[in-house]
Amino acid sequence: MSSKVNKVSEAVIKRLPIYHRSLTDVIENGVERISSSELSELTGFTASQIRQDLNNFGGFGQQGYGYKAVDLRAQIDKILGMDHTYNTIIIGAGRLGSAIANYSEFRENGFNIQALFDVDPEKIGKEIDSFPVISGDRLEEYIETFNIDVAIVTVPREYATDVIDRLIKCNIKGIWNFAPIVISAPENVVIENIRLNDSLLSLSYHLKEKFFKEVE
Amino acid sequence: MSSKVNKVSEAVIKRLPIYHRSLTDVIENGVERISSSELSELTGFTASQIRQDLNNFGGFGQQGYGYKAVDLRAQIDKILGMDHTYNTIIIGAGRLGSAIANYSEFRENGFNIQALFDVDPEKIGKEIDSFPVISGDRLEEYIETFNIDVAIVTVPREYATDVIDRLIKCNIKGIWNFAPIVISAPENVVIENIRLNDSLLSLSYHLKEKFFKEVE
Repeated sequence: MSSKVNKVSEAVIKRLPIYHRSLTDVIENGVERISSSELSELTGFTASQIRQDLNNFGGFGQQGYGYKAVDLRAQIDKILGMDHTYNTIIIGAGRLGSAIANYSEFRENGFNIQALFDVDPEKIGKEIDSFPVISGDRLEEYIETFNIDVAIVTVPREYATDVIDRLIKCNIKGIWNFAPIVISAPENVVIENIRLNDSLLSLSYHLKEKFFKEVE
Repeated sequence: MSSKVNKVSEAVIKRLPIYHRSLTDVIENGVERISSSELSELTGFTASQIRQDLNNFGGFGQQGYGYKAVDLRAQIDKILGMDHTYNTIIIGAGRLGSAIANYSEFRENGFNIQALFDVDPEKIGKEIDSFPVISGDRLEEYIETFNIDVAIVTVPREYATDVIDRLIKCNIKGIWNFAPIVISAPENVVIENIRLNDSLLSLSYHLKEKFFKEVE
């Protein structure tokens, strides 16, 4: 069987984690085979959308037999790069940084956290979840010495631009950014943003529309 | 001048927080008027996209004079529902819940946090950032008594479905959900999800594509 994978669109990539999560759920419940209509019920996507998405990865499903859950998940793992490991640091040892250090999905997804960085002398030299907290001054040196692939940025907004500039200069490969800033990134860095504030404003908008709309 | 606002598309709504953030930046720096091309440089959207988006809110910009930053931001505030306040609770007093309780943008955006809820007897009765931590058993009673509009769900995945079912039964208006679960929500609840894990897998995918792609 060919393991060749076609170029997959961004929209499919966004749905893969959702398939992955549903497959993990059913595998944990002992399910061996799953049909596109069962996946449809779990994910909310239509069965035809699911079949079309999964067709991208070669001849998986068998008409009338459904997908073998373990094999399909392994294939998705591979496509999502979950068979790789990434040396990862967290910038900012505040509550958000600590919450992320504690987040078990990282290790499962191959993001191996090595250390946290902070500028607060009270935190430097201590440990959070057995990860050392290191002075921000040593960021560049550490990234080079320990071949760090990915940095998770949890510093307050006012420091974020400077931190991200420094990371880009060190040739970091990936940045998972929680700071509410607009980043113009060079080609050779992958940046993924979590926009908490934008999400909150979207919630606010929809609440207003549904519940607090003035009669005009 | 008419304050009538046309029905705004979801795509525009997603861009409004970004305009809002850029306007706040320039207002803090003493800027009074801003042109669509200046906004374009700050946000990364094209000037024509920006003019088209802002046209939705009536006759704001003046050809050749740009937008009055304070007025434009006030209009966006209104559209996003930031002139409302929402009584808010946090479910889960772990690190993520605590990080969120500490997040100053909430109050600025009108989400007034009242309390955190947890099932851990070690946490119940204590305070986090001067907010009380209350037993999860009292959730329904508290929501009714204190007219809670919004719940922020930060509990581990295995408890999330149950918590969200209970919130929906209490007629909560809005849920900001951090748990990696698929929710089928009734019409009368606004749900906004933060998908940390999906974002991480997207980062992983793009890292693999850019840096670790096997030669085929």
